[in-house]
Amino acid sequence: MLKVSVIGSGNVGFHFINLFHNSEKIQLCEWYSRNLKFDKRVTVINDISILSESDIYIICVNDDSISKISDRLKFRNRLVVHTSGSNSYKKINIKNRRGVFYPLQTFSKTRNLNYSEIPFCIEAEKNADRNLLINLTKRIGCKCYEIDFNQRKTLHLAAVITNNFTNFLFILAKEFLNNKNLDFEILKPLIKETVNKIHKLEPEKAQTGPAKRKDFNTINMHLKMLDEDKTRELYKIISEMITSKYEN
Amino acid sequence: MLKVSVIGSGNVGFHFINLFHNSEKIQLCEWYSRNLKFDKRVTVINDISILSESDIYIICVNDDSISKISDRLKFRNRLVVHTSGSNSYKKINIKNRRGVFYPLQTFSKTRNLNYSEIPFCIEAEKNADRNLLINLTKRIGCKCYEIDFNQRKTLHLAAVITNNFTNFLFILAKEFLNNKNLDFEILKPLIKETVNKIHKLEPEKAQTGPAKRKDFNTINMHLKMLDEDKTRELYKIISEMITSKYEN
Repeated sequence: MLKVSVIGSGNVGFHFINLFHNSEKIQLCEWYSRNLKFDKRVTVINDISILSESDIYIICVNDDSISKISDRLKFRNRLVVHTSGSNSYKKINIKNRRGVFYPLQTFSKTRNLNYSEIPFCIEAEKNADRNLLINLTKRIGCKCYEIDFNQRKTLHLAAVITNNFTNFLFILAKEFLNNKNLDFEILKPLIKETVNKIHKLEPEKAQTGPAKRKDFNTINMHLKMLDEDKTRELYKIISEMITSKYEN
Repeated sequence: MLKVSVIGSGNVGFHFINLFHNSEKIQLCEWYSRNLKFDKRVTVINDISILSESDIYIICVNDDSISKISDRLKFRNRLVVHTSGSNSYKKINIKNRRGVFYPLQTFSKTRNLNYSEIPFCIEAEKNADRNLLINLTKRIGCKCYEIDFNQRKTLHLAAVITNNFTNFLFILAKEFLNNKNLDFEILKPLIKETVNKIHKLEPEKAQTGPAKRKDFNTINMHLKMLDEDKTRELYKIISEMITSKYEN
């Protein structure tokens, strides 16, 4: 049985407890949290200095707190990993063996996730630890990718663009519709198909719309409809990028 | 039986032929196309002046060609509709009864669609014709929304933002990954979840990422990683918009 402890109770920590608790091949040892008092699935620890022995400690805290929290660990020479897309394992105090266990997914506490679909990007200072992390992803039935820091940063950037930015476009669209007494619901089949398409068609081939076909009448009409400077600027830049991509 | 003819053989016309052919409550009369010679499901007409009698003629051509093609129809006082999100029914020659039958969906010829999930936005000059269009959507099992021109323009703008722009973000992300020898495949579960979320969670509540949590270290690192001016500008604007949205 592989013994795992989770440090931090934000969105990622919260889902990791579910994930490991669901797996019969993992022994969920302890969950360190500043705020939580009790969880029926796992021993909750509020004092980080009393964490007991595990095979892997997974730090799920804000990027800025990784170093500080790893400094406060009392043990040495155990495997400690963080879950950040944009930080080196070197952020972890060198007294322990270090690695990264980055889940390429978006986590909200209120959302149930199909955990087996999460791709894990792993990295470790030592070969044996890399194998331990591969072993961990196998036990939870997830895909595992060996990714170095440079690649991971790019993946994180791509994730920001496809998740955070896409979601913000949904917010913008919803606001436009609500301003005209239209329900966001009407747009959902289109959004669904936008994404379903990528499983069958390369995004370069799925591109449609006024910017691609250089329909400047429509583009100018849309720019006139946008009364906020930043939104108009955003519309203009993406449209120009699309037009120039399909120029040749 | 409701008799329908389709004018134009672009992506929309192509899918409408499938859609009406699949419905037992619609008689698909004729399909006008400049290029097609034959289709086993419907009589193909290359000469627009010989279109025979239908209850509804649906013009599925580029926005710029709607007026010209409606001028060339030889008959009068029949219901002629276009499928454009950004044009008034007044683009159609006044010699016929006019309306709009706008499908809020993205169409690619190579994609099979679940037609019953397409929301149709309808508008007609006359009440009786509006009812005829409602009747048409019922026969094909689709949702029907009565939408005026002003609302329809907003819907089209929202569709451009959520479909065209979102897809372009996918293209950008794919390019970043490919430049680092990473497969776009690894990002697909995240993209899938980004969209699945909107069915359970309002997009304002689903927003995550460095811009929302004002993580300027990560934002600045990403800006340094982007070596193209327009892409950097795009990243900056959306991040600023997200940050200021969650400021209060």
